[in-house]
Amino acid sequence: MKIHGRRTRSIWRNPDGVSVGIFDQTLFPHGYKELRLEHWQDAARAIQSMQTRGAPLIGAVGAYGLALALRERCDRATLDAAHGALNATRPTAVNLRWALDRVRDAVLRAPEQNWVEAAYAEADAIVEEDAAICEAIGDHGLPLIAAALNKKKGQGPVNILTHCNAGWLATTDWGTALAPIYKAHDAGLPVHVWVDETRPRNQGASLTALELKEHGVPHTLVVDNAGGHLMQHGMVDLCIVGTDRTTATGDVANKIGTYLKALAAHDNGVPFYVGLPSSTIDWTIADGVRDIPIEERSPDEILYMTGQTVDGRTETVLIAPEGTRAVNYGFDVTPARLVTGLITERGIAPASREGLLALFPERHNA
Amino acid sequence: MKIHGRRTRSIWRNPDGVSVGIFDQTLFPHGYKELRLEHWQDAARAIQSMQTRGAPLIGAVGAYGLALALRERCDRATLDAAHGALNATRPTAVNLRWALDRVRDAVLRAPEQNWVEAAYAEADAIVEEDAAICEAIGDHGLPLIAAALNKKKGQGPVNILTHCNAGWLATTDWGTALAPIYKAHDAGLPVHVWVDETRPRNQGASLTALELKEHGVPHTLVVDNAGGHLMQHGMVDLCIVGTDRTTATGDVANKIGTYLKALAAHDNGVPFYVGLPSSTIDWTIADGVRDIPIEERSPDEILYMTGQTVDGRTETVLIAPEGTRAVNYGFDVTPARLVTGLITERGIAPASREGLLALFPERHNA
Repeated sequence: MKIHGRRTRSIWRNPDGVSVGIFDQTLFPHGYKELRLEHWQDAARAIQSMQTRGAPLIGAVGAYGLALALRERCDRATLDAAHGALNATRPTAVNLRWALDRVRDAVLRAPEQNWVEAAYAEADAIVEEDAAICEAIGDHGLPLIAAALNKKKGQGPVNILTHCNAGWLATTDWGTALAPIYKAHDAGLPVHVWVDETRPRNQGASLTALELKEHGVPHTLVVDNAGGHLMQHGMVDLCIVGTDRTTATGDVANKIGTYLKALAAHDNGVPFYVGLPSSTIDWTIADGVRDIPIEERSPDEILYMTGQTVDGRTETVLIAPEGTRAVNYGFDVTPARLVTGLITERGIAPASREGLLALFPERHNA
Repeated sequence: MKIHGRRTRSIWRNPDGVSVGIFDQTLFPHGYKELRLEHWQDAARAIQSMQTRGAPLIGAVGAYGLALALRERCDRATLDAAHGALNATRPTAVNLRWALDRVRDAVLRAPEQNWVEAAYAEADAIVEEDAAICEAIGDHGLPLIAAALNKKKGQGPVNILTHCNAGWLATTDWGTALAPIYKAHDAGLPVHVWVDETRPRNQGASLTALELKEHGVPHTLVVDNAGGHLMQHGMVDLCIVGTDRTTATGDVANKIGTYLKALAAHDNGVPFYVGLPSSTIDWTIADGVRDIPIEERSPDEILYMTGQTVDGRTETVLIAPEGTRAVNYGFDVTPARLVTGLITERGIAPASREGLLALFPERHNA
């Protein structure tokens, strides 16, 4: 995708062939800085401080972290120490562990003199695969947008509402929910995106709005409260959101507030789609509302807000009475009955066990 | 209600018998200042700058503004000029016009030497009536909370979710949606309020949280996105919100986002009530979604956020990429089918034409 007019991924190998580049996402949307990761500790710091974020991207950064470690000292003790330290930076990020294990296994399969190359190669492969999966989600979702345009008799734009940030800044390229939108825009289809602010961390206002602006996709920021009104008045043609975990039955855990948008979509006959790599499907869970644990985060994310003053300073302000108690649930679960379809790298599945198994038959015995 | 440990209304006559006291609500929740209105221009400025807000309260401030004007110069020209100027401060506030007309009519009915007293008396009456209406809403709503407690076999607290600020700071006392909550709390019933932040102007985080804190009612601030999750998990016993305009058929226009909460309440079997003085019923409108015009406000309310820094300065910060387009709809309409009941000063009506007419039979020919 594009940033500053240039096509790029959210992670890349620098021309030196060794160091790795990422964006410092903590500076978005007001600042812009590319980080050069030269040591595995740089990768660990970037993950821990959330300079890099999004499950697939974190995994890729961790994978290169192992390569950087082995390049400095190529032995088993270094591999294991870096693996442990990198994994500890975000202990609940399943994808990080998966990527680290994958690089370690690839390294151990190679002769010791090739460990460094093997690590880089596996990290490269993780990045390429994630980009390909996201692009496939985009390809499979594109016809939905084309169909919505047809339904409007070509009178665009197709108005798409999204919640939070499930774009290329959270993956290595394309994104998940946003991939079909980028595909449609790049194909010349007229699209317009309603960007939910996404309180409390404002990933919509800060990251999705930034992505779409930089890539040139028309969009409008709205508060999370607005989606119902927009849908009541025919201003939304379809919704596409991402997911952190999807059950084997098609229940979707995603950023808090997603469920409210799905209810409004259902009440107004607006199709509600979820873009996801199949790696986020949890085949062991059947009832999302009952069984997916919902992370409770710091109340300070609600009580304080950070932004830029007119004279360019970054300030954090308290927006509630001092001492106010706040509770901050990070996610909610949208029941499958409210989901029109799941856009995966293999195609679009109905949000049901049967629908998912038809696309992923190898999971029949899971 | 209480603020700083003292029972007060949101507007009062000072001991001098002439000037009028209100709070500077623009300083809430971090600052506290009582304003003394001595001239009608003070009243006009307070309304225009939103130092005072809430339809009933604005009406009361305007009413006293006319009394202050006549006290300085008691003639017809002054009356008309002040009426025009005060009315122009918030031209869309129906309640302001109604209060100003009411004081002018009362004045014109009195002998000229009694105009000042007549104006003060009518303004006093407007305040008393509003307080009585709000208290009646509280009395009629209280049994709902008592019933919710019974349903929980006395295992309180009763968890009530509210949106925006429909409390005593928006009326002369008690509030509308919050009146039953204050009644229940004062009666010793265990209540706990989920306070929706209410983006973009954050009236929940700044005003409702402040009111409840000052009166001692247990409460927790949540983002607007959280209500669906809370209801899915049995953490909300009932919802009570206010309204800006209610149709003759029971559709409810209220702060943007109310509709989303009503959908979630309906999906989870949570009762959804609206507290309202009957003056907000628009007997001429039958289809709220189609016929109630929705005010579009400044995008800056979404793009900028104001609060207090750790060292006590007030700062305003931009929270989206520079140049981001935002659209700011102020209200949405909750269809009557999602409303369990309308709590009015005469009792609780089903949200339907029949229900409302049963309580307000004099409207049969409206």
